[in-house]
Amino acid sequence: MAYVNENHLKLPGNYLFAEIGKRVNLFKNDHPEAKIIKLGIGDVTRPLPAACIDAMHRAVDEMGREETFRGYPEYEGYDFLIQKIIEYDYLKRGIHIEADEVFVSDGAKSDTANIQELFGSDNIIAVTDPVYPVYVDSNAMAGRTGVYGADGKWSKVVYLPCTAENNFVPQLPDAKVDMIYLCFPNNPTGMTLTKAQLKKWVDYAKANKSVILFDSAYEAYIHEEDVPHSIFEVEGAREVAVEFRSFSKTAGFTGTRCAYTVIPKEVKVFAPDGEAQSLNRLWYRRQATKFNGVSYIVQRGAEAVYTEQGQKQIKATIGYYMENARIIRDGLKSIGIQVFGGVNAPYIWLKTPDGMDSWAFFDKLLSEANIVGTPGSGFGPSGRGYFRLTAFGGRESTEEAVERFKTRLKL
Amino acid sequence: MAYVNENHLKLPGNYLFAEIGKRVNLFKNDHPEAKIIKLGIGDVTRPLPAACIDAMHRAVDEMGREETFRGYPEYEGYDFLIQKIIEYDYLKRGIHIEADEVFVSDGAKSDTANIQELFGSDNIIAVTDPVYPVYVDSNAMAGRTGVYGADGKWSKVVYLPCTAENNFVPQLPDAKVDMIYLCFPNNPTGMTLTKAQLKKWVDYAKANKSVILFDSAYEAYIHEEDVPHSIFEVEGAREVAVEFRSFSKTAGFTGTRCAYTVIPKEVKVFAPDGEAQSLNRLWYRRQATKFNGVSYIVQRGAEAVYTEQGQKQIKATIGYYMENARIIRDGLKSIGIQVFGGVNAPYIWLKTPDGMDSWAFFDKLLSEANIVGTPGSGFGPSGRGYFRLTAFGGRESTEEAVERFKTRLKL
Repeated sequence: MAYVNENHLKLPGNYLFAEIGKRVNLFKNDHPEAKIIKLGIGDVTRPLPAACIDAMHRAVDEMGREETFRGYPEYEGYDFLIQKIIEYDYLKRGIHIEADEVFVSDGAKSDTANIQELFGSDNIIAVTDPVYPVYVDSNAMAGRTGVYGADGKWSKVVYLPCTAENNFVPQLPDAKVDMIYLCFPNNPTGMTLTKAQLKKWVDYAKANKSVILFDSAYEAYIHEEDVPHSIFEVEGAREVAVEFRSFSKTAGFTGTRCAYTVIPKEVKVFAPDGEAQSLNRLWYRRQATKFNGVSYIVQRGAEAVYTEQGQKQIKATIGYYMENARIIRDGLKSIGIQVFGGVNAPYIWLKTPDGMDSWAFFDKLLSEANIVGTPGSGFGPSGRGYFRLTAFGGRESTEEAVERFKTRLKL
Repeated sequence: MAYVNENHLKLPGNYLFAEIGKRVNLFKNDHPEAKIIKLGIGDVTRPLPAACIDAMHRAVDEMGREETFRGYPEYEGYDFLIQKIIEYDYLKRGIHIEADEVFVSDGAKSDTANIQELFGSDNIIAVTDPVYPVYVDSNAMAGRTGVYGADGKWSKVVYLPCTAENNFVPQLPDAKVDMIYLCFPNNPTGMTLTKAQLKKWVDYAKANKSVILFDSAYEAYIHEEDVPHSIFEVEGAREVAVEFRSFSKTAGFTGTRCAYTVIPKEVKVFAPDGEAQSLNRLWYRRQATKFNGVSYIVQRGAEAVYTEQGQKQIKATIGYYMENARIIRDGLKSIGIQVFGGVNAPYIWLKTPDGMDSWAFFDKLLSEANIVGTPGSGFGPSGRGYFRLTAFGGRESTEEAVERFKTRLKL
């Protein structure tokens, strides 16, 4: 008799964004005339950079000719892309990364979900709270999180609250933790850490032989000084940190699918007898066994992000979204809503009016203003009473959304 | 302290095709002048169908315009592709599959490696032997296979020998097994089952509440009658079988990356208290949590496989490869080598001359004839003394390879 992995049955409800999609579809069915503005799931709306379009056309043509056709890609990504990543994303900031430390993939979601496979089931994970649900759910599916309680917390997960009270800066845990998920600029709060604040985590990880799983999918949105773009800007991070990057938000690749993960060769995990194992080699073996690389066409598209034209085009698009962020921030402030983030990140994190429940505010905003956002509680217990809006909409619909906040939402 | 998943440390050596790549690179370094013919890894060489090229150009253009840009794809695949899959791959054979039973992915390798996550760690797996290494290795990484012995077998895996002695037809196991991996047309042997032979497995699975994980990545190469293209041609299979399909070998997508998995809603796995769970819903939750769908551009390319032009073009390419298979079969037979497969599959499975060790024959073939094949023992203990060649090469190099077998190999 085939038995189920019971850990999967412990997961509460739907994956967050699947649940949102379900509620929106229900609302649409009942109100087919409503003009819904989606500022919920963090999905981009601007077209791909022209440089990427041109490169993908060329790659498609290559796939149609015998002399230039490509079969299975390298498991770890094509060297032409890896070299550009190393040069532009790291060397230009003074960081040295080797070619065999970069692993190209179909998405940071896949990588952040899969990386936990390399760790034993008794590791204690720590997550900032609120948090991108994938980190916790993927560990729950692997049986690493204990029991899900009525308080919305897993019994074995260490939650690091990030709220207005501590200015969204997570405190080091009292207990020892083994795997630490950090995402800065943060999804969902849009807040950042300084280099000095991040250094505390690197020092903690070194002292405790922990591994930091650092998601910097939003680094391209940083424009303030002293906000690190990569955890490898911090001294000692090469020994304890893995970094996840994506072309999704940097270059509009959410529907094109390309990302990469950097695992320095110094990062170690340990057997019970204390013997150190290279996480880099374990990941290579994992990827070679369970993954077959990213489409050649897509990798050529990603490579073009690093051309002069590509760099100009992504900067323009990021500027466009960040102007949206400013419009949302200013608009919401003007009607007395408390907002955070949106300065070095495309997310605006707001306090729900009168401490309203996050899902209640979701339903209210959808029904009164026909705007879709993301309930803060969907990201964890410390997200209760908060709500996320994204700056990834079009300009017109972003302005219209702010207008609806002002005129249609009954505050 | 971050602990390693010790199951990963139990894996013997490299992933098979990574090991082959390593040996070939070493040989190349020592013999830069050698003209190597690769008939090892099952990778296609003919260009993509023109219909797919045209469709991908159009999709790339759509991604470059605001009005037609696409963000995150559906986790389970775009409906335009799913409808075509249902119509062409199933309905035309009288099989009814619902839209929410099809899950599009980046590859059958990913899916066959990931599906085991849904099963408890105490399930007993059965595999035909020889076998595609991914089924076993992915279960080994999850701790489901016991200890790897000196005999090349995992202690908890039930091996179903497929050799010349039983005409490559696996026998039902004596012990009860829970997860049964079957791949027909078979990789690596190139052999097939009749509908009646496959029905025995469906009946076994029904009687034992097992699940059959059926890999039919090579079904497009079938041209004999009474060889089922889908396990769902067998009565009762909807209750116990999952089917994995790929565009890799059907339409040359190894470097483009698209596949799909069909999980009928009747397929169940069980909690220890006997409560049945829908594998279909568990997989949806898994994909929604750990995967973000396949590139829009790639899915449009896959859709074009089902146009009239696309169907004509893939048939021509498959015919090309199958003529290669005939050339290899006939050529090897003519020098007294015993060959199997290559009739309904692009693989030729040969007995090594004088029962030579598979890796020894690999090295001999590489050094004497500069031909890369795959050692049968890399696919499991019953592959010892066998060797796999693929029909995916170009015509000229396939003919040249046969010529080298005849003239350069010292038999």
